Amino acid sequence: METNGQPTKRSKWTIASSLMAKRTFNPIRTVVDGMKLEPNPDKDLISLSIGDPTVFGNLGPSQEMKDAVVSALNSGKSNGYAPSVGYEHARAAVAKRFSTPDIPLKSKDVVFACGCSEALEMAILVLANPGQNVLIPKPGFSLYWTICQAYGIDSKHYNLLPERSWEIDLDHLESLIDENTSCIVVNNPSNPCGSVFTKDHILDICSVARRHKLPIIADEVYADMVFSESEFHSVSSLSEEIPVLTCGGLAKRFLCPGWRMGWIIMQSRTGAFDEEIRHGLFNLSTRVLGPCTLIQAALPDIFDNSSPEFYSHAMEVFESNAKLAYKTLKQIKGLNPIMPQGAMYLMCGLDPSYFADITDDQDFVEKLMCEESVFCLPAKVFEYPNYFRIVLSVPPEKVKTACQRIEEFCLRHSKQK
Amino acid sequence: METNGQPTKRSKWTIASSLMAKRTFNPIRTVVDGMKLEPNPDKDLISLSIGDPTVFGNLGPSQEMKDAVVSALNSGKSNGYAPSVGYEHARAAVAKRFSTPDIPLKSKDVVFACGCSEALEMAILVLANPGQNVLIPKPGFSLYWTICQAYGIDSKHYNLLPERSWEIDLDHLESLIDENTSCIVVNNPSNPCGSVFTKDHILDICSVARRHKLPIIADEVYADMVFSESEFHSVSSLSEEIPVLTCGGLAKRFLCPGWRMGWIIMQSRTGAFDEEIRHGLFNLSTRVLGPCTLIQAALPDIFDNSSPEFYSHAMEVFESNAKLAYKTLKQIKGLNPIMPQGAMYLMCGLDPSYFADITDDQDFVEKLMCEESVFCLPAKVFEYPNYFRIVLSVPPEKVKTACQRIEEFCLRHSKQK
Ligand SMILES: Cc1ncc(COP(=O)(O)O)c(C=O)c1O
Ligand SMILES: Cc1ncc(COP(=O)(O)O)c(C=O)c1O
Repeated sequence: METNGQPTKRSKWTIASSLMAKRTFNPIRTVVDGMKLEPNPDKDLISLSIGDPTVFGNLGPSQEMKDAVVSALNSGKSNGYAPSVGYEHARAAVAKRFSTPDIPLKSKDVVFACGCSEALEMAILVLANPGQNVLIPKPGFSLYWTICQAYGIDSKHYNLLPERSWEIDLDHLESLIDENTSCIVVNNPSNPCGSVFTKDHILDICSVARRHKLPIIADEVYADMVFSESEFHSVSSLSEEIPVLTCGGLAKRFLCPGWRMGWIIMQSRTGAFDEEIRHGLFNLSTRVLGPCTLIQAALPDIFDNSSPEFYSHAMEVFESNAKLAYKTLKQIKGLNPIMPQGAMYLMCGLDPSYFADITDDQDFVEKLMCEESVFCLPAKVFEYPNYFRIVLSVPPEKVKTACQRIEEFCLRHSKQK
Repeated sequence: METNGQPTKRSKWTIASSLMAKRTFNPIRTVVDGMKLEPNPDKDLISLSIGDPTVFGNLGPSQEMKDAVVSALNSGKSNGYAPSVGYEHARAAVAKRFSTPDIPLKSKDVVFACGCSEALEMAILVLANPGQNVLIPKPGFSLYWTICQAYGIDSKHYNLLPERSWEIDLDHLESLIDENTSCIVVNNPSNPCGSVFTKDHILDICSVARRHKLPIIADEVYADMVFSESEFHSVSSLSEEIPVLTCGGLAKRFLCPGWRMGWIIMQSRTGAFDEEIRHGLFNLSTRVLGPCTLIQAALPDIFDNSSPEFYSHAMEVFESNAKLAYKTLKQIKGLNPIMPQGAMYLMCGLDPSYFADITDDQDFVEKLMCEESVFCLPAKVFEYPNYFRIVLSVPPEKVKTACQRIEEFCLRHSKQK
């Protein structure tokens, strides 16, 4: 049917995708898929790249959590549609858990979402119009950018300072604010940095928000996941009159990212969300209709029955891995690890000038994979070149082996051999 | 702090919601929430309003389905992140189930979503840009309109013909097509009509799509849910070269809407989706990251282990309720029920001129609720005034009582008493 350059029947049936589909993408995929990643067949692969604590089988949901899901299943009462914002009693359980004497919460202050990912999408979508801008951290979790990009909302990256344990460069943050700024996204504890902000630093961030009357989206999916020397302070506990949408979920703290249980908590001491935002989030929830009802129904039991050991065990693994990795990498010329205080990641700086044949983080990560079968994420995907991120949820012996291999690799590629 | 009409500190902190949040809403909520709905305290409430087969406790997921979820839970392998389009083996199970000799499917043709609702959102979003239009049925499931409205995509309603068992008015459909039309949404079996299209009618719909080179979004969440006299034909089985995005899920057929398991199947005999749409759907899936992994992992077992009786039992309930309701309502002056052929709904026409004091469907439904404690949905919410919809998944004795009460109600309000 090919005739005179006219489109063939077949080519006429090629369906174009929308602009939104074209501009929705996750930089992690683009970078990772674009890398030539063949592990060395003589060495077993150690993947330190994905923020999923369950992949190695050493960590996962507790028996109490599984029992809670089974009992939701057996009750026969959690198979139908829940209200699109979530079951009342499950939202009440979140409200109870995150209430403070200062901001007591009710179930109506909680909206469920499919993972913290959808919570973030809804929080950004309810606050920002296309053409407005959202301030997001650099380096930072790439989804903030992806969401803004998909919806034609601008994003502006504010700098984090590695030399100050990844605190926010407050002058830079403030310099980005203009009349189109709709909100500030604060991620604490941080992916990819593993940083935990001090009380004072959060108060300083709040001062900036207060001066410009900007609400904060607090991505606290790693809430309470801090190492022994650090303390977690939620943004809302220090925000005074600043309205905060706190996004969270079960994924990290409860070691079950696949369950897709997330939430938004509307926290405001002045009722700033009452007029429009509560209703707006309710409206937005009517599109996807919330997370799986079995997990929703299990939530009160999950909160009530999880033992302190379940929580502390995971944090001990992350912390001892962090110390081990930090100590080993710190001794390697050309590398500059930043010691994390929480979450489950460590960022390591890389100075290509120390190396004979390594141009940047992506090149480093590719060659490391090919020669040593160790896979880290180049921090390019977090808009932060010449760092790489390693995940700390791996069994300790693997961290050890991985760091040894990185050491040998760096020696082998060093300029001064 | 109130001074000279200047905004107070508090009012300055009133945060406005985005335009998208404002224009995202579900007409069902608006109409239902706007109704004065106090049931008669002397009569037990019979709610025939929600398309959720599990609410009365007579229907729900089978033991095999629950076992499949428990075994996913116990495997310890389904707690982490799945690929955002879904687990490979679970998508393969959907591909296998919906393959035909004519269009064999692979896992790569399947993308998971949180319920058929999110599947529909992704299907519409991948095909249509703001300013383009999507053709949707009237009366029809309100989510099509809600999605378009939220994203600034136009929608145009094509008429269904009650006198022809709710077939599409093809001339009307064709008259709506213009250069900005991106696709046709076809819902079969239908909510709210309970209609099931014949093979010939689907072929006629396809002719229209073919003439205008329009892809079809086939909402087949009620696939196979047909009464004994009818046969289900999927659009894709008859579409020849027309590319079809089929949206489906577990909700209705497997009686578990709260589990939020849905999918899109890309069906094309000409590869029309290969260039952009597959990739576009993949991109769109990276925002919410798919349904709960426990349900995904259970899917192959759910398909393999569900007994024919599980399926036929629910359909027998729906069909005998349909016959009972039809027979009773048909005898009532002023009402005109249309016998359904599948799904789980019956639409009943209403002629206000027969009644002394009933102005329209909303008035009918409100008064029926106050006097008889029977709650139906006014078809206004489906853009179809002077009909009401009743749900057929209710225990038979409730249908009987409800219809008797409707009869007494109609007699009481009739002009000629
Ligand atoms: C900072 C941050 N926020 C949100 C998320 C998304 O969490 P969820 O899996 O609940 O969608 C992640 C996941 O890696 C994350 O690192
Ligand atoms: C025609 C139609 N499509 C899609 C859906 C949504 O299904 P799900 O619950 O899987 O999101 C429904 C639910 O009532 C429906 O009636």
